[in-house]
Amino acid sequence: MMPTGIRARETCGKGEKSETRFAQVAPVSQVTRSLVAIACLTLLVSPLEAAEIKPQRFVMPNGLTVLVVEQHALPIVQIQALVKTGSVQDPPEKAGLSNLVAGLLDEGTTTRNATQLAEQIEFVGGALEAKAAHDFTTASTRVLAKNTALGFELLADILLHPSFLEPELERVKKLILGEIIAQKDDPGVVAGKAFSQLVFDGHPYSWPVNGTDETLPAISRADVQAFHAREYLPNRTILAVVGDVSVEEARALADIHFGAWQKGPDPARSAASPAAIDKPVVQLIDKELTQTTLVLGHLGISRTNPDFYAVTVMNYILGAGGFSSRLMDSIRDRQGLAYGVMSQFEPRAEAGPFLVSLQTRNATANQALAGVLKELHAMKAAPVSAKELSEAKSYLMGSFPMRFDTTHKLAEVLCQVEFYGLGFEYFTQYPKWIEKVTGGDVLRVAKQYLHPDRYALVAVGKMGEAKLKQQ
Amino acid sequence: MMPTGIRARETCGKGEKSETRFAQVAPVSQVTRSLVAIACLTLLVSPLEAAEIKPQRFVMPNGLTVLVVEQHALPIVQIQALVKTGSVQDPPEKAGLSNLVAGLLDEGTTTRNATQLAEQIEFVGGALEAKAAHDFTTASTRVLAKNTALGFELLADILLHPSFLEPELERVKKLILGEIIAQKDDPGVVAGKAFSQLVFDGHPYSWPVNGTDETLPAISRADVQAFHAREYLPNRTILAVVGDVSVEEARALADIHFGAWQKGPDPARSAASPAAIDKPVVQLIDKELTQTTLVLGHLGISRTNPDFYAVTVMNYILGAGGFSSRLMDSIRDRQGLAYGVMSQFEPRAEAGPFLVSLQTRNATANQALAGVLKELHAMKAAPVSAKELSEAKSYLMGSFPMRFDTTHKLAEVLCQVEFYGLGFEYFTQYPKWIEKVTGGDVLRVAKQYLHPDRYALVAVGKMGEAKLKQQ
Repeated sequence: MMPTGIRARETCGKGEKSETRFAQVAPVSQVTRSLVAIACLTLLVSPLEAAEIKPQRFVMPNGLTVLVVEQHALPIVQIQALVKTGSVQDPPEKAGLSNLVAGLLDEGTTTRNATQLAEQIEFVGGALEAKAAHDFTTASTRVLAKNTALGFELLADILLHPSFLEPELERVKKLILGEIIAQKDDPGVVAGKAFSQLVFDGHPYSWPVNGTDETLPAISRADVQAFHAREYLPNRTILAVVGDVSVEEARALADIHFGAWQKGPDPARSAASPAAIDKPVVQLIDKELTQTTLVLGHLGISRTNPDFYAVTVMNYILGAGGFSSRLMDSIRDRQGLAYGVMSQFEPRAEAGPFLVSLQTRNATANQALAGVLKELHAMKAAPVSAKELSEAKSYLMGSFPMRFDTTHKLAEVLCQVEFYGLGFEYFTQYPKWIEKVTGGDVLRVAKQYLHPDRYALVAVGKMGEAKLKQQ
Repeated sequence: MMPTGIRARETCGKGEKSETRFAQVAPVSQVTRSLVAIACLTLLVSPLEAAEIKPQRFVMPNGLTVLVVEQHALPIVQIQALVKTGSVQDPPEKAGLSNLVAGLLDEGTTTRNATQLAEQIEFVGGALEAKAAHDFTTASTRVLAKNTALGFELLADILLHPSFLEPELERVKKLILGEIIAQKDDPGVVAGKAFSQLVFDGHPYSWPVNGTDETLPAISRADVQAFHAREYLPNRTILAVVGDVSVEEARALADIHFGAWQKGPDPARSAASPAAIDKPVVQLIDKELTQTTLVLGHLGISRTNPDFYAVTVMNYILGAGGFSSRLMDSIRDRQGLAYGVMSQFEPRAEAGPFLVSLQTRNATANQALAGVLKELHAMKAAPVSAKELSEAKSYLMGSFPMRFDTTHKLAEVLCQVEFYGLGFEYFTQYPKWIEKVTGGDVLRVAKQYLHPDRYALVAVGKMGEAKLKQQ
């Protein structure tokens, strides 16, 4: 939430790839030329094999699951903890509790105040942070390899021994309230929050992770302490260690700094899944803006849904495929209605949202809405072309290694692979799972998971100009 | 410029480190404990040395400078070209020209249309992009190592042979215009653009890189073609190749794909440097917002200014030091006026801007402004403490390797090190140059480069509530 200031201007130029559709001649000659060029250079190519991700996993006596990946290219170590609690565990009238707890972790421990924590990590050029999401909370540190022990020590200290002093509690609550108020000026966030309320009505996914200006003041120090005592347990935590560290060193440091963490009983969990809406619901939010932000969607899938990979391919073709998706082709390139448009499934522990979002001139909001609904219907009506299917799969397979091209990203992915129980074969099998998706799978999941007849729609803009009509 | 939608909510929780100042006891016992822990683990530590950046550099007969860094940890290759032209070369009445040229590079070449370019790169899961900045333009591609030859081929094709067809020109102009219009809803961008106009009045840094809705329509295809022919020359270009590629392979591929690029005469350059303003100038922009965005600053320094390192340390203490800067301590932690506040020097080829930016409630705008000016005066009035100096230097030295922890970041830094003529000793000497900065240096550069008596100030918010007074 730092103000962007002049920096924003630096990167705001149109400078990403786009495309036209006026000539679909397959560029065979160029591909052939490339293959020849590659063949010519085979003798020059580095003999090293492509790097593989082979995590080591062990469970400590207190139940803490530790994952280690050695990467010695840079003298950096990332240590990330994932605690299996998040805003879904907030009481509705105290929404924002898990986020407040996470925000207070580095505001002081029983042996270090906030200043000392900040100074110790900054003194070695490192970083220390914690944040809550819907289903889990992460706390992480990044240090130079020579400071790995300090990284373990500080991360363990904030997770195990936060002091939650009253002055820090009040100060952080005030900061989060300021953030919530500032978000009311951001049409994207306003639309997203309203959309979640419509789609997840009655389910914990309906409230914002950071709470509201009504629920946050209701949270007491006792709430924070009780939440931490109940939810932050080693047997509910995954620790990923990635970078210039050996498995033996990581194991020894985990033992030193996390070994004394006391196991506890698994907290009670309600089993309620979010329910689908059964007819279109629309919310219009009038603001004095030159553009209207549209968010349209409905319930999507959970991360453990076996259709995840088919849905990923389908959604790439629909609207996640950067500048070559159907939505971009229609809304941006052919109709010129928006600078960008995207669709996303956000899989969570339970079914998360599916949504399409865009910004368009107030006067073209109806045309953009019609364009989006048309593409959703089209995905369900007929199979995608062989070319679309092959391009989507090729992109998803080819770009897979770039999802963990930093220690930070890899530690995040590792934690989530463990959290969702995907198995480490994820790192080698993902391309094969994508490869196996057929055109029939894509049509089937489009029919099953896209619902242009019962969507939630939020529009934020000058409603007098947009004159939105339900379609 | 993709709409943020619901994603924004995922990461908006307060979850970064902060600090209080109520107890400044040095955490000696913890540091000692860490050192002991490290000592105990020495035998377990990986034997690999910290990675060093040792670029290979060669200049091709046509003047193209090629820099190569081998990194074989991941099967990824980043190829980045920096062309020594940017928005400073735009004619004032055609501001946005260099950005439009960059945006059109991947919209079609003499042998591939935009669709073919997008499909070829996406088919291998890669990325291809180009963007202009003030002093230079970058075009880059990222591919899996097995597709390195294709990466070279496509990057060379868009740099050497863009077709600039009329339909693409019109379409991209329309997209950039849409972006410019959308930016009018973003108070941070509005403030940044107004600030640049005040600070760089009469200098090319005064106009936005992406132009304005008046200048962009004035640009013709002939303008674009002439700009490209004059400015895009191998002898004005740096090519950085980073990742899972050998120096020999990079050299061979550069020769194949860039060898035929024709050298040309260096284009004429005007020598005008931006001039400092001599008294406070204020611009108030009234908008119906709950918060006021403030941007305050003046001319800063160029990247080649020998005081760069002392200014970096000084500015870290003032307002760039994350959550432990003086501005954060005063404006955020002690007065609770803003969620974040930062100061930055943005060094460019010529003196770039120095600015402080924050968002605060409309009603507290005057108090925040007073707080900022007070800290600027304080930096000039007295030396920083030994503790502040040591913490700043320690952070800057310790975090240095994280500035190039991806192939993408390293390729960017490499290009800029060459562009500014910093020498490759930058990668080994930066920590020493920071270490050498004294408290006397910090006070001297604060006195020389901070001007709280002749600033430019832009405020965007509800001006009737903010009632800003010049201070």
